[in-house]
Amino acid sequence: MGYTNPAKYHIKVRLYNGEIAFGKGVAQILRLVEEKGSLSAAYKSMGMSSSKAWKIMHRAEADLGYALVKGVSGGASGGGTVLTPEGRELLARFTAFDEAIQAFAAQKFKELF
Amino acid sequence: MGYTNPAKYHIKVRLYNGEIAFGKGVAQILRLVEEKGSLSAAYKSMGMSSSKAWKIMHRAEADLGYALVKGVSGGASGGGTVLTPEGRELLARFTAFDEAIQAFAAQKFKELF
Repeated sequence: MGYTNPAKYHIKVRLYNGEIAFGKGVAQILRLVEEKGSLSAAYKSMGMSSSKAWKIMHRAEADLGYALVKGVSGGASGGGTVLTPEGRELLARFTAFDEAIQAFAAQKFKELF
Repeated sequence: MGYTNPAKYHIKVRLYNGEIAFGKGVAQILRLVEEKGSLSAAYKSMGMSSSKAWKIMHRAEADLGYALVKGVSGGASGGGTVLTPEGRELLARFTAFDEAIQAFAAQKFKELF
């Protein structure tokens, strides 16, 4: 059989200081924390285990050097989890970076394959 | 500690039909096969084990539906491994795709971080 183009591609984007720390998984947790106001609601809605969620959150925060989320208590909702300003900032920049790369890759894939 | 930009990023590019099949590892093996004329010389120079090299080669060929390398016998070198035309074609297109994405990402990273 001769050459045929592969049907699909996958581009994984990650940010880090010392080790691979922040990618699609942590970003998705942060987006869901923002939406749901709760870390456990966030990882449960992704079908992710508590241990995996905490592991990737801790690894990201340790590598970046600041907290991405913080607990809040009281209020009508009885407390929960919100993004820190640093978490919100990094999420916004990662999202812009990832989206730009995915859009560029989609165009290039059409040209080359 | 306030927000600081991550120092580094990593972009992993992969091609596939059914499952993730062709990425940086297989591409690097193919480049070294082209240079050295031998599959074992290729994976040894990468510090990769024989079992790992065969596993990722077989997985890629099975997913793509054609051979990437073939054995050759005789000649001054006493035989070895060369790329198939399909392997050469895919390697060239993957390299162009990956290089374009890496160059775009480097520019975007400077803009956003």
